[in-house]
Amino acid sequence: MAKLLEMKAQLGGDEGKHKFVLKTPKGTRDYSPKQMAIRERVFSTITSCFRRHGAEVIDTPVFELKETLTGKYGEDSKLIYDLKDQGGELLSLRYDLTVPFARYLAMNKITNIKRYHIAKVYRRDNPAMTRGRYREFYQCDFDIAGQFDPMIPDAECLKIVHEILSDLQLGDFLIKVNDRRILDGMFAVCGVPDSKFRTICSSVDKLDKMPWEEVRSEMVGEKGLSPEAADRIGEYVQLQGGLELVERLLQDPRLSQNKLAKEGLGDMKLLFEYLALFGITGKISFDLSLARGLDYYTGVIFEAVLLQQENHPVEEPVRVGSVAGGRRDLFKASPSSKISSRKMPFLSSICHGSRWLLAAMEHLSSLLLTLPTASEEKIRTTETQVLVASAQKKLLEERLKLIAELWDAGIKAEVLYKKKPKLLNQLQYCEDTGIPLVAIVGEQELKDGVVKLRVVATREEVNVPRESLVEEIRKRTSQP
Amino acid sequence: MAKLLEMKAQLGGDEGKHKFVLKTPKGTRDYSPKQMAIRERVFSTITSCFRRHGAEVIDTPVFELKETLTGKYGEDSKLIYDLKDQGGELLSLRYDLTVPFARYLAMNKITNIKRYHIAKVYRRDNPAMTRGRYREFYQCDFDIAGQFDPMIPDAECLKIVHEILSDLQLGDFLIKVNDRRILDGMFAVCGVPDSKFRTICSSVDKLDKMPWEEVRSEMVGEKGLSPEAADRIGEYVQLQGGLELVERLLQDPRLSQNKLAKEGLGDMKLLFEYLALFGITGKISFDLSLARGLDYYTGVIFEAVLLQQENHPVEEPVRVGSVAGGRRDLFKASPSSKISSRKMPFLSSICHGSRWLLAAMEHLSSLLLTLPTASEEKIRTTETQVLVASAQKKLLEERLKLIAELWDAGIKAEVLYKKKPKLLNQLQYCEDTGIPLVAIVGEQELKDGVVKLRVVATREEVNVPRESLVEEIRKRTSQP
Repeated sequence: MAKLLEMKAQLGGDEGKHKFVLKTPKGTRDYSPKQMAIRERVFSTITSCFRRHGAEVIDTPVFELKETLTGKYGEDSKLIYDLKDQGGELLSLRYDLTVPFARYLAMNKITNIKRYHIAKVYRRDNPAMTRGRYREFYQCDFDIAGQFDPMIPDAECLKIVHEILSDLQLGDFLIKVNDRRILDGMFAVCGVPDSKFRTICSSVDKLDKMPWEEVRSEMVGEKGLSPEAADRIGEYVQLQGGLELVERLLQDPRLSQNKLAKEGLGDMKLLFEYLALFGITGKISFDLSLARGLDYYTGVIFEAVLLQQENHPVEEPVRVGSVAGGRRDLFKASPSSKISSRKMPFLSSICHGSRWLLAAMEHLSSLLLTLPTASEEKIRTTETQVLVASAQKKLLEERLKLIAELWDAGIKAEVLYKKKPKLLNQLQYCEDTGIPLVAIVGEQELKDGVVKLRVVATREEVNVPRESLVEEIRKRTSQP
Repeated sequence: MAKLLEMKAQLGGDEGKHKFVLKTPKGTRDYSPKQMAIRERVFSTITSCFRRHGAEVIDTPVFELKETLTGKYGEDSKLIYDLKDQGGELLSLRYDLTVPFARYLAMNKITNIKRYHIAKVYRRDNPAMTRGRYREFYQCDFDIAGQFDPMIPDAECLKIVHEILSDLQLGDFLIKVNDRRILDGMFAVCGVPDSKFRTICSSVDKLDKMPWEEVRSEMVGEKGLSPEAADRIGEYVQLQGGLELVERLLQDPRLSQNKLAKEGLGDMKLLFEYLALFGITGKISFDLSLARGLDYYTGVIFEAVLLQQENHPVEEPVRVGSVAGGRRDLFKASPSSKISSRKMPFLSSICHGSRWLLAAMEHLSSLLLTLPTASEEKIRTTETQVLVASAQKKLLEERLKLIAELWDAGIKAEVLYKKKPKLLNQLQYCEDTGIPLVAIVGEQELKDGVVKLRVVATREEVNVPRESLVEEIRKRTSQP
């Protein structure tokens, strides 16, 4: 069939001089009704949570002036999609939702906002699509921008991640937290020179995939760190725990002498106190190996990971790893600040203070689509409550009259677009699409002023007076 | 302030060598939280209606292979946004949702589907933004594709438009209908040569903005139609009515002799019978001046217009005109078909039959944003039900504990991110953002095991036992 199609395309029509390729662009995909049903369920869970926490929502165009994106992504700038110069402004597709958000705040002189933004972003990457990574994918960003008392917004961000992952029922998860200042202090007291900070960070960050010995030899062998410094780092980065670990490190003879580390640990203690009030410390792990060293991270960093389930098949190809991340960010750029990879000159006079970001649920819904639970489950792609059918061939008019009554009462209803459908075909349609009820009109029912309501699953049939049909359908299809 | 910003941008940072422009690309705009609140209300009304009618939903990438769009839009192809050639495939931003839909059907060999798709499309046009027209704008497409008994899907499309416009409460409206075959037949019996069909169509289509005399002189003077033919057209295109007009025209000595016109009028009669069963003929007008002559329109065409309200201020700049349109389409292209402006070779072996399209709510939400009602109304941008506050400065811990209880029970709640907020500031925040309730914890309340619940609007305060607080908040904020 596909072959026939291709041949036809090659032969037929004026366009047929070259082979017509029927596909979506590389790294993109369509969402089928079934995939949309899953995506909408995920987004609605996430959105409900953001709204529960009082967030507003904004939207920005899919493209920005090219210069708005210029210089914000360092190395990764080569992954930006540019639009062709067709006269007028030079434009690029958005690479993330952060830069458009910053541009929006600056344009509108907003210093204080809690907003979310769920939208597609674009990266000319070579993504592993089997792992749910694409060139066009969704980001779900939640930001709190402004100046506030320490660690309250940070704690709320973690609470939100905890709520979303619980609500999505993805199985067990863990949220790792660390603080940029603790990282800085730790590397300083271990004797890592400033020039090696970024590269040693990225080695440490591999600890969730590699054993310590390999990470150590990378640091010493490839990156030229002294073995003594490496060993000192090793003592710290293998530590994970809760409030008791924070308190132990506050007493640590080396760390407690470092101003940055002490500040970070003090805030981490406060954070854990708030998390205890929220009742979520059980799934939070203070983890010194969580090392995201980007220059503009200024405070807490966190990352949520799904834990492998015992009952997952071994051949499961999906790596259920990081599903959400966040950090406190320095959301401004002044000549004195160190921001090098994410310059936002237009924010310099606007956004004093910090920003709390909860981002990168980006691959969550892709992930869900490929998880075994999703494919096994029977998923409906419509919400239709009732099919309006007729027992006799004819009665189209009566079906149309009845369905209009139902629609006007807010009932989700369908009718087959046939003048004389067979009852069997109408019942089969319900089986195929998961419609739970059939409202059947027939000569006798019309005479009696009733409608025969059939429950598809049980084949039970009851005659319902026409005036109470709407109520009866509502009762039988209401979610408990 | 804007000036200061500009100057700062010019001076500060490495980017500052040229003037940094803080704007969205031409023809695009951001949606603020307030605009998003309106947009989401409109979309949720539209979506609910589509779902009530049993539609599925799909999504496609924002860009397509350039060749997928090539040759589909005739003259308008110059308005397509191309992506820059950065290696790999040549891509273009989607111009509408129809071509991606057709590509989706062909790729997946789907012949039968009822789906909607609400998404942004892109046109390098010079739009009148004051009228709510942009280069990036939403389309809300609802399509029924497949082969069905005559006029049942057509009638449902009109019912949907009727429901949506009623639900949106935009004021009075009228849905004009005509049929491509009636147009063809009418022009034929009036003596319009085939070669002039398109151009005469477009003259007739101006009748909603121009008096007949001007349209007539355009047809005769500019377009070279004979005065006799023009006069004959004039007799028809000034007719509007319902079923009685259809029946009169079925008896018309000239039209009844034309095969196409007779077929179209027969179906129009059937349509009106179905619309009567749906109870919506009151707002439907069979209007012979509705002349959309595109080659691939094969049956019913319709267009919904908002009627000017008496009580609208005269200086109202928004032209409340067409807000929705649709038609039956020939959704295939075979060498023998006449489709010239919308070739879809990839559909040739897939989609036999027709398609019913209800499209072009495209400017509806833009329109709503600029309507006076929308700006006058007080619109909330969050859904927060309750602010958790404290009477005394301190008690942050108690506030956090209480708000976690509320979040976990699904209550939408906020707390100020301050260790020691003043009660007055907390109450003011509720006034500003429209939060209806305040849950106040204080030393005494904690001792008594109660929370003081304050109604912001009335300043009424009641002590509620902590264990029934959730229920009390739900009761007081439930929509009737």
